[in-house]
Amino acid sequence: MAADLVRRLLAGERRALARALTHVENQSAAGYEVLRLLYPHTGRAHTIGITGGAGAGKSTLTNALAKEYRRRGKTVGIIAVDPSSPFSRGAILGDRIRMQELTGDPGVFMRSMATRGSLGGLSETAADAVAVMDAFGKDVVLLETVGAGQDEVEVASAAQTTILVLTPGTGDDVQTMKAGIMEIADLLVVNKSDLPNTDALIAALKAHLTMSEHGAWLIPILRVVANKEQGIAQLVEQLDAHHSYLHRSGALQSERQEQARHQVVAAVQGEVLRRILRQGASLLDDLTQQVAERRTDPHSAAERLLAAVSGELS
Amino acid sequence: MAADLVRRLLAGERRALARALTHVENQSAAGYEVLRLLYPHTGRAHTIGITGGAGAGKSTLTNALAKEYRRRGKTVGIIAVDPSSPFSRGAILGDRIRMQELTGDPGVFMRSMATRGSLGGLSETAADAVAVMDAFGKDVVLLETVGAGQDEVEVASAAQTTILVLTPGTGDDVQTMKAGIMEIADLLVVNKSDLPNTDALIAALKAHLTMSEHGAWLIPILRVVANKEQGIAQLVEQLDAHHSYLHRSGALQSERQEQARHQVVAAVQGEVLRRILRQGASLLDDLTQQVAERRTDPHSAAERLLAAVSGELS
Repeated sequence: MAADLVRRLLAGERRALARALTHVENQSAAGYEVLRLLYPHTGRAHTIGITGGAGAGKSTLTNALAKEYRRRGKTVGIIAVDPSSPFSRGAILGDRIRMQELTGDPGVFMRSMATRGSLGGLSETAADAVAVMDAFGKDVVLLETVGAGQDEVEVASAAQTTILVLTPGTGDDVQTMKAGIMEIADLLVVNKSDLPNTDALIAALKAHLTMSEHGAWLIPILRVVANKEQGIAQLVEQLDAHHSYLHRSGALQSERQEQARHQVVAAVQGEVLRRILRQGASLLDDLTQQVAERRTDPHSAAERLLAAVSGELS
Repeated sequence: MAADLVRRLLAGERRALARALTHVENQSAAGYEVLRLLYPHTGRAHTIGITGGAGAGKSTLTNALAKEYRRRGKTVGIIAVDPSSPFSRGAILGDRIRMQELTGDPGVFMRSMATRGSLGGLSETAADAVAVMDAFGKDVVLLETVGAGQDEVEVASAAQTTILVLTPGTGDDVQTMKAGIMEIADLLVVNKSDLPNTDALIAALKAHLTMSEHGAWLIPILRVVANKEQGIAQLVEQLDAHHSYLHRSGALQSERQEQARHQVVAAVQGEVLRRILRQGASLLDDLTQQVAERRTDPHSAAERLLAAVSGELS
């Protein structure tokens, strides 16, 4: 069944793509089989992470980028990830609204993923979804995250190129510099750059970049007004330049190594958790009770749980 | 050695407390032995998580709270956690500055923990440090986090009572509501409430609370000026009220269950990772290479890694 699904996906069938993404998002056995079969076909897309504070206009920028890439004849996959809250259903709503705008263009495929709670491994699932879009043959995969915390940094790190979106006058600049999020950005985009204080923000960003360490890639700062589609063509040119740089410099290779290591470790941890929930659920309940009552400690409980499910683990 | 350390810690020796925290933070075998021996002595402290955006004044509030609790004859442990950036060393610097202010009072013990990178399990280590302070006999343990992302939410969830610190005029309110962080707060503190826009922020918070679901506990909104120590006594009274509520309602019991489950799962994942790095490091390197070259996928690699180290896992 997975083999048939993958065959249809590789033949360009959108329904097969949709179904494969659902299997992968559900972390089902079929999803892992699909990934195993697809993986040799991945590694061709330019994957671009888009992160930044709430209200920075990431969705609008993502849509504008998708349209610009389409104008240039590239096919586009969009994965919108909302790791911020177990309560938010914003991603789903936004999805519907945005689907309307992009509907009818078979060159764009969008999927949004809401949070799966603390046990989920959202960055693992996001990376898997990127792989599926990549194998399907999308030239560009845009991975957009909500919010700007450490989880979003994790998710964005599943992409080759990372855009950090800032807006003038929100205090984003200071918060972002403090939080170390700027260190992961390959391009800085000042969105809503028709607002006052744009020059001050850009000056602050330049000053910060001057103080930071760089590699051979000089991080560009781009002025954009995403909802008027201003500055988008220049942004795409810089994205292409970064993609060329990654290939030329060998950075793509080392980034791939790092991502691969991260993904293997995340997959191990996810797999152990699934096995425990499948085979050791009642023991987990017992041990949880014992820890709550201070009759044992979490680490001793973990050792016992691992010992008990180790037959299953082998 | 661990037994002797624990004996001295339980006898109230500060040097033993410092050493135990170091072992626990290093995730060493001695650290886990210390935790195992200490665990039956935990569960007495009121543990309070303090979270909020950068610049909200969390450190200042934490210090003011520590002083107020000392005035009331309570002993205090402070754990300052900085998960925001692998680049920041702010926690270490802040620690030194703050140690000076609180130095000489044997009733306060402070420890700051910097980030350990993405493989670390910082919330696991923070929870362990809370347990050590608790076993030492601290009446109150303040767990302060830097930033306001999902990691901080994780860390703060290791506490019984969570304070969310906001400041007027920073746009914090909107960002925080969007990010779902308000949902984890038991108390809302508006710090720097001598600034303009305080009333507007409080009105927005009230409106948001009215729309949200509550349990039996009505989330109070407190005006504080932490650097002038205004409103701190009222805050401590509300913290005591929340502690009583947790005991009275049975919520403490269910919260303990939930925390215990979370800690056991985190400990399992941390332990698996340590075993792989100890026993399967070269296989991990091999598999990482294969995934980077698309010769295998992360999940198949994870299965092989688990199979290979399963002797060690049992």
